[in-house]
Amino acid sequence: MVELNEAKELIQTHIEDEDQAILTPYELAQHLKTVKAHDEELFADYLARLDPESLGDVAIELPEHMLKDVIETVPSEKMVQALEELESDDATELLKYIEDIDEEKAKELFDSLDEDDQSEILRLRSYDDDEAGAYMQTELFWATGDEITGDAVARLRELKSEGELENVSQLFIIDKDKILKFAVALEELILFDFTKSLDENIQKYDDIDKFKPHTAFDSDYIQDVVGVVEDYDLNVIPVIDSKGVLLGRITADDIHDFIQESATEQMYNLAGVSDEAEEEDTLVKAGKARAFWLLINLGTAIISSFIVGLFDEAIASYVALAILMPIVASMGGNTGTQALAVTVRRISLGEIEFKDAKHVLKREVSISLTNGIIFGIVMGLVAWAWFGAWLLGGVIALSMLINLCLAGFFGTIIPLTLKRLDIDPAVGSSVVLTTFTDSIGFFCFLGLAKWILL
Amino acid sequence: MVELNEAKELIQTHIEDEDQAILTPYELAQHLKTVKAHDEELFADYLARLDPESLGDVAIELPEHMLKDVIETVPSEKMVQALEELESDDATELLKYIEDIDEEKAKELFDSLDEDDQSEILRLRSYDDDEAGAYMQTELFWATGDEITGDAVARLRELKSEGELENVSQLFIIDKDKILKFAVALEELILFDFTKSLDENIQKYDDIDKFKPHTAFDSDYIQDVVGVVEDYDLNVIPVIDSKGVLLGRITADDIHDFIQESATEQMYNLAGVSDEAEEEDTLVKAGKARAFWLLINLGTAIISSFIVGLFDEAIASYVALAILMPIVASMGGNTGTQALAVTVRRISLGEIEFKDAKHVLKREVSISLTNGIIFGIVMGLVAWAWFGAWLLGGVIALSMLINLCLAGFFGTIIPLTLKRLDIDPAVGSSVVLTTFTDSIGFFCFLGLAKWILL
Repeated sequence: MVELNEAKELIQTHIEDEDQAILTPYELAQHLKTVKAHDEELFADYLARLDPESLGDVAIELPEHMLKDVIETVPSEKMVQALEELESDDATELLKYIEDIDEEKAKELFDSLDEDDQSEILRLRSYDDDEAGAYMQTELFWATGDEITGDAVARLRELKSEGELENVSQLFIIDKDKILKFAVALEELILFDFTKSLDENIQKYDDIDKFKPHTAFDSDYIQDVVGVVEDYDLNVIPVIDSKGVLLGRITADDIHDFIQESATEQMYNLAGVSDEAEEEDTLVKAGKARAFWLLINLGTAIISSFIVGLFDEAIASYVALAILMPIVASMGGNTGTQALAVTVRRISLGEIEFKDAKHVLKREVSISLTNGIIFGIVMGLVAWAWFGAWLLGGVIALSMLINLCLAGFFGTIIPLTLKRLDIDPAVGSSVVLTTFTDSIGFFCFLGLAKWILL
Repeated sequence: MVELNEAKELIQTHIEDEDQAILTPYELAQHLKTVKAHDEELFADYLARLDPESLGDVAIELPEHMLKDVIETVPSEKMVQALEELESDDATELLKYIEDIDEEKAKELFDSLDEDDQSEILRLRSYDDDEAGAYMQTELFWATGDEITGDAVARLRELKSEGELENVSQLFIIDKDKILKFAVALEELILFDFTKSLDENIQKYDDIDKFKPHTAFDSDYIQDVVGVVEDYDLNVIPVIDSKGVLLGRITADDIHDFIQESATEQMYNLAGVSDEAEEEDTLVKAGKARAFWLLINLGTAIISSFIVGLFDEAIASYVALAILMPIVASMGGNTGTQALAVTVRRISLGEIEFKDAKHVLKREVSISLTNGIIFGIVMGLVAWAWFGAWLLGGVIALSMLINLCLAGFFGTIIPLTLKRLDIDPAVGSSVVLTTFTDSIGFFCFLGLAKWILL
């Protein structure tokens, strides 16, 4: 209960102190979650008292079932205000979440927005999830080159006081057709002669190329844009259309979020877990998504067992085979997982792609072959010592060599092939891989044993 | 060979066009790598012709064996210049890499730096890898509150033209004891009255709290600092000591790098791969690091097999047990890996820690228990149908239930405990986990079978 009281106190202070945001939206969402778990009425009361800006910020952070409460409790006019307070990318996102819960409501809210907001949201929604356009904000500080620098700065003052702009780090200079010409970092702008036009200021520099910004097309893959931002250590990147018209900007904090989220997604996908389902507080969705992958795994495990079943007589007459066979499969699985993790990660960091397959395979198979030789010999000696049969040692050594070598091969080629087919290389690749390493491991070991030993 | 010619051309242009950096340091490093693979002499020639700034930037990006060539080929005076051109955090990093290769050389270079650079590097080196201090740059744009705004801006112009400052987004205001008082974003500073002092400008605002920056202590865990930067969407965070004295700043691009690197490290550690060893181009280091984890895995696989060996008579008399036992182990391993991936990731994102163990365990064990029931029943029916023995189905159902439930438990408690012991929860946890899931799986299944069926 201490936690509850603390949560109440913090929310209370946050609501009362209008000048300063005491809590981040994420923290506020966490505390609201605690309150709701204990006291539904108080939760509704807090929602009613939150100002629209905080409401919008916090609504994005809430899990689905709590957002459902929000849209049922809070009057539509206030939700509309909340949407209008948000930056365009966030408003689009929130509206998408609302739509997932209640399509009618989402439509009602959208219709109440003013026309500018509507058209911005429509445009942002037209992008796919993996397109840069879906991640941009359309709120920008821009000017034409002939504007006097001081006037542009005065406009910045106005836009900021109206709460239209936050987190400004560049002034974008466009021509009369809205084509992006230059981007002036504020650290440069502040050194400009305020009485002269922007163009005059820029032309004074020997090296005006430094005002030519790195840009992203709205249709670029967001992953590629993140690569550019990282390679050039950018704080913000302007987004343009195919004609060069300035559409919006993607800021460093959006890039942060994207990097974190895609790392989580990758790690979860490799383990057969859905990142979206896990974010929900209810266990059912997370459990279902995990069950899906377990079902696939069960299917592949049955296939491997079926292969074991082909050798039932061999096992019955030589039980050491049953004792040793899990080792061959386990070592193969591990070796394959190593190659898989490295390949998936390097693909996602943009270091390799399908055309590098030959080079990458050479590297990975060399490593797994070497380890196959080493551990084949080690395990061969262990098996010899354990069961006093050198030929059994030879069989397990040879089958480990084959299985580890193939594990390296499949751990590399599976994600590269998935990527080539435009499928997320992390999704399902572990399961496919262990199907190979288990089946091949059992088949090699038991097959060689039957052939050589019996 | 096309690739080589392209690389040559790009490097050539980069070296000749002094005004503009054509390639990022990373790209330059990649192309130099290609050149070196084909033509050692040309590689040395390019190194000699690179300007010190590019040389420093690129040296950080090179793998160890190429950096070795650099310090053997490039004269010490030029290396010293390169170090001086780098920002303090980067210079410290490069010097550390050089020290790993040639301690004498590193000492020689360090001794040739000017005193200021030396003392900054010494201070940065005194921090641990996980401390915020190790990630800061000491180059800052600061002023005292009584300075006239226009004078501060004039100083900025000077510092920038001397190449002392890059990527400025805030002016830090300190008192005479260097205690950090305020941070003024450039988007605010540009709106200040340049003829008045900074303090006068600040005091005009109703809400001067907005100039109170979020700060990090130099001794803070870098992971926590990343959390603050993300929660508040910061572009830069000032670093202070325990007395509040301003020491440096950590910028968004360093945070990006940290996020990417720690995600890679986590994913690799989970798979039993060393991120540092993989970055090297030589296969030996990567292979060795992987072999280490394979060796541990071999040890645990032998333990599991030993457990199987306890039931050799049961297997010999009922070979279906050998056929079905890998399924129990495999499903346990997968269920545990799901819980493990989620727990490791949530720990690293700061969402959970050891004190939340009860809550997290409840969630994870509920999911794995539910899936244990479902897949126990499914597999029980499959086994019944396959081998025509309903009691065998009952045994596998019960052992899957137990193993999956315990897998969820261990998949959660292992990383939480490692974290509690201040060990990276991703390192080795997969191997420990599968030791449990394999051993328990085999023991439950074979033990129950022996007890009930035979």
